[in-house]
Amino acid sequence: MARFFITASNIFGGIAYLSAQDIEHMRVLRIRKGEIFTVCDSKGTDYTCKLNDDDPTGASVQIISSSPSSGEPSVYCTVYAAFSKGDKMDTVIQKCVELGASEIVVFPSVRCVSKPNDAALLKKLNRWQRIAAEAAKQSERGIIPQVSAAASYSDAICLAAQADAALFMYENEHNLGINSALKDKSKIRTVSIVTGPEGGFEQEEVNIALEAGMVSVSLGTRILRCETAPLAALAAVMCLTGNLGG
Amino acid sequence: MARFFITASNIFGGIAYLSAQDIEHMRVLRIRKGEIFTVCDSKGTDYTCKLNDDDPTGASVQIISSSPSSGEPSVYCTVYAAFSKGDKMDTVIQKCVELGASEIVVFPSVRCVSKPNDAALLKKLNRWQRIAAEAAKQSERGIIPQVSAAASYSDAICLAAQADAALFMYENEHNLGINSALKDKSKIRTVSIVTGPEGGFEQEEVNIALEAGMVSVSLGTRILRCETAPLAALAAVMCLTGNLGG
Repeated sequence: MARFFITASNIFGGIAYLSAQDIEHMRVLRIRKGEIFTVCDSKGTDYTCKLNDDDPTGASVQIISSSPSSGEPSVYCTVYAAFSKGDKMDTVIQKCVELGASEIVVFPSVRCVSKPNDAALLKKLNRWQRIAAEAAKQSERGIIPQVSAAASYSDAICLAAQADAALFMYENEHNLGINSALKDKSKIRTVSIVTGPEGGFEQEEVNIALEAGMVSVSLGTRILRCETAPLAALAAVMCLTGNLGG
Repeated sequence: MARFFITASNIFGGIAYLSAQDIEHMRVLRIRKGEIFTVCDSKGTDYTCKLNDDDPTGASVQIISSSPSSGEPSVYCTVYAAFSKGDKMDTVIQKCVELGASEIVVFPSVRCVSKPNDAALLKKLNRWQRIAAEAAKQSERGIIPQVSAAASYSDAICLAAQADAALFMYENEHNLGINSALKDKSKIRTVSIVTGPEGGFEQEEVNIALEAGMVSVSLGTRILRCETAPLAALAAVMCLTGNLGG
């Protein structure tokens, strides 16, 4: 079913008001009078809608019913990924949104090959936010996860450490896996997953994360690429918290 | 550490015999006398080696010690993925090898947009096998997972159904998740994961899989792209069987 994200303030009095871009998209999809589609308020509620008889363009559409978006997981999981070169981050963002991340934060790390300057970063963030929006539509999420950039490694860790389960993916951790780290699942409402750059974290960075209270976690004995690690960790978290099928 | 895969028959008498290609690779990596590297027999054993004093080219290298490759998971998991268009299959193969798949089988399905003819398929299989070999080296696997193509959908299902846990990823399954499907983990030695094409499976295909004894499994409420589903399912299987950290 066609799906449109709009801001919650554009829904009132049983009517949803679509943007010019969505109206154009509706025209391209050839949505006709009587046809049912979904409008999501980007806050976790889906509205089943149809074209308003008085307004065939779709600028205002009639709400038939509403329900919580089924695509939202029960845990709020933020993925913190170190900058990576080329278009690897595009894949990370698209897949993380599909897999259920609620937010994605990119951050600089000592061994990052690519550290964009402010202008380049702004352009990239715009691009990543568009990718997140497309992935949210396609995967039927109830929100469009925000993509942001932390100003520094310490800033990222400071934020990440606040989660109920603050998981620091570290290739030299050989004991604790995600299974064990999430053992007491009932109390976990927020999860953060931090993954490093291609060359891994520097010891000093590991120390900062552990001192901030993050838990160092292993993803097993195979060496995962920097763009594979966040996806594997997120799929595992979603699986263990019952958000990847029961 | 540098890693070379060779066939097991080229290891005997405390010496490993490298191919011309590996010798060239060793030259590029500037491996010198006394330096330690790993030679894997592609059957799950790693050999710690150094250049033979009598043979500085590396055609024959001296074995110092051997141990089971640490990168091999305890379950033999085969991923069956329907053909997808563009280079999506490249990503699936690379990531599945990193995540621990033991074999990858591609298969035709009714709604596949791309169904290569024999000549094109042969070319693609060669390419995919190269990608698998590179990913196996990079992720420190103990084998190079084989990539093959099933002649038909039924052939693929017939093979897949033989595993201890034969998991058919189906978007209209709303009850059973991977967690529940793998509940009795102790007895599971082999797992198969079957994932569909972009448009999903036809009902007739679902019937064939269920009649063959496969279990229909949900990956949750979010709609995953055809290239994301095998990675999510594989990461979940590895996580639940203790092969993605403990």
